[in-house]
Amino acid sequence: MNAVQDPIQVHLPDGSVKEFAAGVTPFQVAESISPRLAAASVVARIKPLHAAGQTAADDKEAGDAAAMYASEDAQAERLVDLSTPLQESVTLQLLTEKDPDALKVVRHSAAHVLATAVLELFPETKLGHGPATDAGFFYDFYRPTPFTPDDLKRIEEKMAEVVARDEKFIREQEPREKGLQRFKAENDFMKIHFIERFTHDGDDISLYRNGAFVDFCRGPHVPSTGRVKAFKVTNLAGAYWLGDEKNPQLQRVYGTAFFSKKEMDEHFVRLEEAAKRDHRVLGKQLDLFSIQDLAGPGLIFWHPKGAMIRKTMEDWMREECIRRGYDLVVTPHVMRTELWKTSGHEGFYSQNMFTPMELDDADYRLKPMNCPGHILIYKNSPKSYRDLPVRFAELGNVYRYERSGTMHGLLRVRGFTQDDAHIFCTPEQIENEVVDCIDFAQAVLTTFGFSDFKVELSTWDPNDRKSYAGSDEKWNLAIHSLENALQRKGIPYKTIAGEAAFYGPKIDIKLVDVLGRLWQLSTVQFDFNLPARFELEYVGEDGERHQPLMVHRALFGSVERFFGVLIEHYAGAFPLWLAPVQMGIVPISERHQAYAEKVQAELQKAGFRVELDARNEKMNAKIRDFTMQKVPYVLVMGDKEEAAGGVSVRARGKGDQGSVSLADFLARAGELVAGKSMEL
Amino acid sequence: MNAVQDPIQVHLPDGSVKEFAAGVTPFQVAESISPRLAAASVVARIKPLHAAGQTAADDKEAGDAAAMYASEDAQAERLVDLSTPLQESVTLQLLTEKDPDALKVVRHSAAHVLATAVLELFPETKLGHGPATDAGFFYDFYRPTPFTPDDLKRIEEKMAEVVARDEKFIREQEPREKGLQRFKAENDFMKIHFIERFTHDGDDISLYRNGAFVDFCRGPHVPSTGRVKAFKVTNLAGAYWLGDEKNPQLQRVYGTAFFSKKEMDEHFVRLEEAAKRDHRVLGKQLDLFSIQDLAGPGLIFWHPKGAMIRKTMEDWMREECIRRGYDLVVTPHVMRTELWKTSGHEGFYSQNMFTPMELDDADYRLKPMNCPGHILIYKNSPKSYRDLPVRFAELGNVYRYERSGTMHGLLRVRGFTQDDAHIFCTPEQIENEVVDCIDFAQAVLTTFGFSDFKVELSTWDPNDRKSYAGSDEKWNLAIHSLENALQRKGIPYKTIAGEAAFYGPKIDIKLVDVLGRLWQLSTVQFDFNLPARFELEYVGEDGERHQPLMVHRALFGSVERFFGVLIEHYAGAFPLWLAPVQMGIVPISERHQAYAEKVQAELQKAGFRVELDARNEKMNAKIRDFTMQKVPYVLVMGDKEEAAGGVSVRARGKGDQGSVSLADFLARAGELVAGKSMEL
Repeated sequence: MNAVQDPIQVHLPDGSVKEFAAGVTPFQVAESISPRLAAASVVARIKPLHAAGQTAADDKEAGDAAAMYASEDAQAERLVDLSTPLQESVTLQLLTEKDPDALKVVRHSAAHVLATAVLELFPETKLGHGPATDAGFFYDFYRPTPFTPDDLKRIEEKMAEVVARDEKFIREQEPREKGLQRFKAENDFMKIHFIERFTHDGDDISLYRNGAFVDFCRGPHVPSTGRVKAFKVTNLAGAYWLGDEKNPQLQRVYGTAFFSKKEMDEHFVRLEEAAKRDHRVLGKQLDLFSIQDLAGPGLIFWHPKGAMIRKTMEDWMREECIRRGYDLVVTPHVMRTELWKTSGHEGFYSQNMFTPMELDDADYRLKPMNCPGHILIYKNSPKSYRDLPVRFAELGNVYRYERSGTMHGLLRVRGFTQDDAHIFCTPEQIENEVVDCIDFAQAVLTTFGFSDFKVELSTWDPNDRKSYAGSDEKWNLAIHSLENALQRKGIPYKTIAGEAAFYGPKIDIKLVDVLGRLWQLSTVQFDFNLPARFELEYVGEDGERHQPLMVHRALFGSVERFFGVLIEHYAGAFPLWLAPVQMGIVPISERHQAYAEKVQAELQKAGFRVELDARNEKMNAKIRDFTMQKVPYVLVMGDKEEAAGGVSVRARGKGDQGSVSLADFLARAGELVAGKSMEL
Repeated sequence: MNAVQDPIQVHLPDGSVKEFAAGVTPFQVAESISPRLAAASVVARIKPLHAAGQTAADDKEAGDAAAMYASEDAQAERLVDLSTPLQESVTLQLLTEKDPDALKVVRHSAAHVLATAVLELFPETKLGHGPATDAGFFYDFYRPTPFTPDDLKRIEEKMAEVVARDEKFIREQEPREKGLQRFKAENDFMKIHFIERFTHDGDDISLYRNGAFVDFCRGPHVPSTGRVKAFKVTNLAGAYWLGDEKNPQLQRVYGTAFFSKKEMDEHFVRLEEAAKRDHRVLGKQLDLFSIQDLAGPGLIFWHPKGAMIRKTMEDWMREECIRRGYDLVVTPHVMRTELWKTSGHEGFYSQNMFTPMELDDADYRLKPMNCPGHILIYKNSPKSYRDLPVRFAELGNVYRYERSGTMHGLLRVRGFTQDDAHIFCTPEQIENEVVDCIDFAQAVLTTFGFSDFKVELSTWDPNDRKSYAGSDEKWNLAIHSLENALQRKGIPYKTIAGEAAFYGPKIDIKLVDVLGRLWQLSTVQFDFNLPARFELEYVGEDGERHQPLMVHRALFGSVERFFGVLIEHYAGAFPLWLAPVQMGIVPISERHQAYAEKVQAELQKAGFRVELDARNEKMNAKIRDFTMQKVPYVLVMGDKEEAAGGVSVRARGKGDQGSVSLADFLARAGELVAGKSMEL
């Protein structure tokens, strides 16, 4: 321990160490480096040196122990105000706009600004709490009259005043009893509840003050309200106090905040874009799929157009599996509970499974995974090293028990289709198998129009080896083969220690969609557990029995989820090869109907999916309807086209392309489909 | 009633009526027609005229009532010995070898011959019962020593003696008490049980005697043992008395009998052929599928080769559906019990369904049928007459609760895949829709190699209209459209009144396989029930709401079952387009390996499924292995083929076809696949 009068050491991220008198603030440290850094800093991350220092120790065992301690004691590292006096030696990091944690602090401060504004406008209001969220912040208020949209506007204006006043955020500590009295005097039942729940008799409690506004709050905050540079009140919702409908209803005011107006504007453009791309909205609008109340949540009904896209996806996947040396298999959707006991799912996965069905011979359960089925086929006949690698692929429908209320469109469901494969191989084969999996995963992403992705390699926690199935030797071989494969493919990746499942390390591939959002879809995952539980074997070249290595891999991940991502990525405007209706035909008048039918027949013969709008409607109405349905090509035909044996082409997003001969159009469209092109 | 002395009338099938003195026997009637008929007759079918005569009455209501009575009182029509004295007027039919019921009588008589032989050889034996079965007959015997194979041979020889003695089968009646005493004296606990169970105090019981042998038996029998012209003892099995394992074990001796040695020989050839074609045996031998104890009975695991055939079947089916204007859809495998209540399955079909699964929001059940799912998609958006016909097709996996012990390979299972479609249309459209269904069904059969089929039209029982859902008008329209469609397609059919389900009439198509066996697979079925229960609607041209007609149709019926029939039909030697491995490549020696790989790659590029046997084995062993796997083509290549850029072709069942250029082979194989030819 440092005596108060001793100087303290501040370790900076660049490795340098500075000495200051105790009581120095992070802001002063920043100023000592550069005034610019001080101005740019939002908040500081500190870690008392007695904990952090040892991480750098050379002794490996001590290092491991420290890492374990650090991961279990989150208090050791924390965010503090720039004005916090530092009383002991610390590592210190000054957070600027570049750090996502800094944005959270800005948003939390914005919540205080919001509450300040509300109390100034509506002094009778009682305060709930006001945290930052992933997308912004909110504050809960209790008052008899609901806020009107006009009130929200006034609140936002008042917030701008509070920001303009640039009031300092000042942290104060006071005895819990004094704090309770303060809020009791104001009759603020919610604050009283929070203090009573989250602090104990004899504690000091922390308060944050800006101007006349005081809140019970742990902090930290930005230095002053002026640092909340870009904010917006977004919406209002009702929420019962403590989530109990017998309690008074609170008004939850939502807002968001950013470091700059520009970032905030981009955020709202992205939101708008995301809303337009919401797969649930487009799913209805384009008649792709539905979820039916009578059947239950999380169960997808694929309508003709969605099912056609699914067929195109699945056909491609099946052919690609065959081309890449996989064997397709099909396994049942229900199997005896006995099997799930053997696999261990009945133990560690039971709560994610639909409940058992009792038949006259045994209990049965819906499969949540395809692995045990594939394993039974592997075990059905003896295997030698010559039979390996065995690669079983199935578009397998699995059912998992998500709790009601947690489902979300196609993205979180109870029933879905995995493009699941299991590879059984020898240690010598494993690296090539992993390379092929990664190559296949890349092919899936590029084929379906994603150019960017992030790769994570999840390995075990080397300090907790006993929590994992499989020998050290197997883990090392597996991790090594995953690393080597990624390096051979030249793919950058991030290693996350301790993130592997107990049964083996894995690679996760997260694709980046057109809005820059990350989606976890593909996975390549070792399993050391099931081969042992099912006693899988092959006879090696040495004539001895060995346990094969087993790799699960899913590339779409879930056909349903991948479809949801595709809808949002393309905003429903699918590339020609995927579009459920590829061409819409519009005869200009009734007398062109026969020619239109001839063109349709010819296009269908060439394998295209074509709709002819023969309604008694105006040409423009028909073109508009096809356009609304995001049909890639609208082909209009009148006298001129009929005489020339051609079609007048409107390409989606490109407008009128003029008339071309049917042969030329067919050739062009054929090329685009064959090349799975994103162009029209 | 006729007085005994009055003459009786005998109505013959040709409509003629003859008069005889009461007591005349069917044999005498036959003789009065022709001695040849008398000699050919086996047994007679009679019906007392007081019941049968009224069927011809003109009064419709009386006629309906008589038909109803007749169908409920089976006693009215029965088989009797040719020696039975007729005491009242009857309709009479003399059964000869052409009538299947006559064969059953021969087999029953053969069982008596068997028992006669056993008692002569092993007098201490006690008799159980000895009925005819679909394939022959058996008799249950109780004796302390089991029969040996040698005993069975001696029994068969002794039976030949009994037949040669040509003993008359004589029916006798005696009071029940006397009969009981007779069998008690012989200590025959089984006969005593049968008499006590099936007759009542005061009854007369009937006995059949041939030579010294007497049995308690209802008859009828052939006139004498000499009429059992061709028979064989086939096997021996154990059976507990009354099926209870606490009772003594009986020895059940099985045999079969035919009208002629030739027919019997053909039967055994067929049996041998059927055994060789047993899909369960071939399924193992060719590694097509398995059923796994750990997973449960009736659940099919499709191994790579079986799954490849399934894929070929399903791909063809999906493309053909699209070509014929169906929309593919996909619906979930589980849905809320609430849905099954709405559909009515929870009531009338519940015992055929897997038991419910309880989730937090509701109970769920596995779907036994796809209809409700398709209906929910239909109902998802309003429909006008312009949207009809709507044709939804799905390769839908359904699960039905068959009781354990009743499953049989692929033919009777708990989980299967229906190629299910539902057509919703207007009354004006229905006939064309049915024609298209039948056309599609024919295409399925011919494509998969079946040239012969039988069609049955099941209609309602017009006397019981209240038991059926749907108006008379709908039933008439539906039956009419089915009849018209069959007539337009020129397809002969048999109408079976009263065989329709309560919800609508149907056409069943039974295919005839290469062994002449009938298999019920395709069905086209009206449903008047579900559209009413789900309140389906469309807005007609008149602007009013109407209920659409709904037709279910399945053409494979069940993909699993159809596959089972295909395996047996082809004895596992699938036509080129269906074969899971189409070509096996055999390099003559190691130095031809590179060329073999080149050929394999080229064939695979052309879309063929090709296996290369690169093992260090003799050429002939490799050829034999491919032949055992019934691979259509085995391509052998050595120096000569490599020099010429060709392959030496062995075609399944046709042997060595000599060498051809790879190009020529590719062209020929491509043609065969494109034409789905049965040839090689």
